[in-house]
Amino acid sequence: MRPPSSVGSRPSAGAGRACLDEVVTLAHGAGGKASAALLDAVFLPAFSKGTPGTQTDAAVLELPSGERLAFSTDSFVVKPLRFPGGSAGHLAVHGTVNDLAMMGARPLALSAAFVLEEGFSIESLREIVADMAEAAATAGVPIVTGDTKVVDHGAADGMYISTSGVGLIPAGRELSAASVREGDVVIASGTIGDHGTAVMLARGDLASGGGHLLRHRPPERPDGALAGGRPVHPVAAGCHPGRCGHGLQRTGPGQRSDGGARGVGPPAPGRRSQPPASSSASTRSTWPTRASSWPVVAPDEAAAALTALRGHPLGADAVRIGEIRPEPPGIVVLVTTFGGTRIVDMLVGDPLPRIC
Amino acid sequence: MRPPSSVGSRPSAGAGRACLDEVVTLAHGAGGKASAALLDAVFLPAFSKGTPGTQTDAAVLELPSGERLAFSTDSFVVKPLRFPGGSAGHLAVHGTVNDLAMMGARPLALSAAFVLEEGFSIESLREIVADMAEAAATAGVPIVTGDTKVVDHGAADGMYISTSGVGLIPAGRELSAASVREGDVVIASGTIGDHGTAVMLARGDLASGGGHLLRHRPPERPDGALAGGRPVHPVAAGCHPGRCGHGLQRTGPGQRSDGGARGVGPPAPGRRSQPPASSSASTRSTWPTRASSWPVVAPDEAAAALTALRGHPLGADAVRIGEIRPEPPGIVVLVTTFGGTRIVDMLVGDPLPRIC
Repeated sequence: MRPPSSVGSRPSAGAGRACLDEVVTLAHGAGGKASAALLDAVFLPAFSKGTPGTQTDAAVLELPSGERLAFSTDSFVVKPLRFPGGSAGHLAVHGTVNDLAMMGARPLALSAAFVLEEGFSIESLREIVADMAEAAATAGVPIVTGDTKVVDHGAADGMYISTSGVGLIPAGRELSAASVREGDVVIASGTIGDHGTAVMLARGDLASGGGHLLRHRPPERPDGALAGGRPVHPVAAGCHPGRCGHGLQRTGPGQRSDGGARGVGPPAPGRRSQPPASSSASTRSTWPTRASSWPVVAPDEAAAALTALRGHPLGADAVRIGEIRPEPPGIVVLVTTFGGTRIVDMLVGDPLPRIC
Repeated sequence: MRPPSSVGSRPSAGAGRACLDEVVTLAHGAGGKASAALLDAVFLPAFSKGTPGTQTDAAVLELPSGERLAFSTDSFVVKPLRFPGGSAGHLAVHGTVNDLAMMGARPLALSAAFVLEEGFSIESLREIVADMAEAAATAGVPIVTGDTKVVDHGAADGMYISTSGVGLIPAGRELSAASVREGDVVIASGTIGDHGTAVMLARGDLASGGGHLLRHRPPERPDGALAGGRPVHPVAAGCHPGRCGHGLQRTGPGQRSDGGARGVGPPAPGRRSQPPASSSASTRSTWPTRASSWPVVAPDEAAAALTALRGHPLGADAVRIGEIRPEPPGIVVLVTTFGGTRIVDMLVGDPLPRIC
């Protein structure tokens, strides 16, 4: 009954405070340092007074029965609403299912709140809603409650969807950054950056003609296999490599502050899959938030985890990308293809559109 | 694990289908017939396929332990963000707490998803967030998870807040329209219409100078008393009298389709209180959705219920306003102050701003 707080969409960085300005900027919603600054300066002081939160993807609520619920929310403001391989409707379901999965939870139910712009086509609304229903059915989670508001023409960009979800965390499952240890192996469950690239192409933000046509795959039910029959969780979207790094820079309560990862660089671009996130009793944690996941496993479980992931329909591209090192503390170091190293800093904003 | 669906913000009316147009209109978000038409035509067919929902304020999820959760969501698009007696921040908390209370649930936790417009003042954001924190603290429910998105300047009206909530429904508590019986007494827990009037005045939509200054009271913890120590739940806001009627026009699965109420007219305007909604084991149901509530109680419990409500700090204005009659079926009949009667039909849209 004393739920840990996980207010805010992104982990914050202590160094991020400098990003805060007098007015809201697009960077504040981009999930980088500016977002962290907003979280630290505005939301956490108000909502987490005296109860420092773990800032995970979802809050964990302990019920009187002892059952544990994961509870998460996300707004989806993707533009355009439809892009190669999917739509805002798919994202709105996948994103929240993924947030629950990141806590090791099995999704129980979703809610959907729509803010619609006056004049928005009913037919387009039907299509987005159908996409949501399809994604929810595939993930095996019902959309059980909702809300609709309409704002004046021009006061929304077509439509915004806010999805919340609740899920049950199986007994004994504890996915936490606090359990990560030196020497642990970091796995990427699949390619990263695909999805942002697809949306950017659909927006016309790139000169390229669009070679990266992606299939926005629906999330799987978390009944797959990682490390011997334990659950594999779905994932909604790829992730910008620069943003992905920040999860490794967080130091939550009890987390070893010396967690640095040595990466082998992101997988080659242009692959088509949306890989599964993974979380199981043997997985220590998953990074980053709402993106193709980076499960962290003990060294002696890495091979089995990779085999299990690759056996999953969405996990063919799973690859070991790094390990937890004590030095340099709190820093992600990338080993380049030329053998050099460079620091992967958390971005202030995000050059790719922030969509989910 | 088979949660009944309660998709959509408002009960729908079979006759509402005619309201649907080719594009979204403001009426679709106003909670009247047009909203019902959108719900029937778009959301329910997609999300409630084969599982007709009860269309209550919150969905009910049954957990493996046998515990029952209420789960609700709402978007808040009030303009202006601050109005006499409160702000969008207060509303965003009160509204969702109220939705949970309407199911007889004790709120466990809230989520808050913000869509912010680029250029929105950080100071204004701080104030709204402080109001949310204040309202949540008073209601005794933590805001445990959240999200922030920023959209281009002009692509939102300052800020939109989507709040979701989960609550525990105590064992044995069943608030349902299905349990309403002929002869039951309808009570208004307080004045109605105050809040919409205050917002309309703040918008300058009325020529009046603003005599209706209201105090938007925070909701109380649902530990009050109705009918002998049983919980009294909080309520967020007043309600437009015309919209209030529609709850009585619904015929949910298993509900007696002959439920008509004979009213004594709304209480006099200009009162200052935000009365508590009420729900207890002895309360049959509460109408309407997210507004000053209309608890329905058995005739022999009405006097005790009124006494209990009036003993609550927010229930001083509680009054008996009607009863359930078999005729005319599904119609709300108002007895005017002159002794005549007229039908209170569900509005197509809403002449007052739809805000929560």
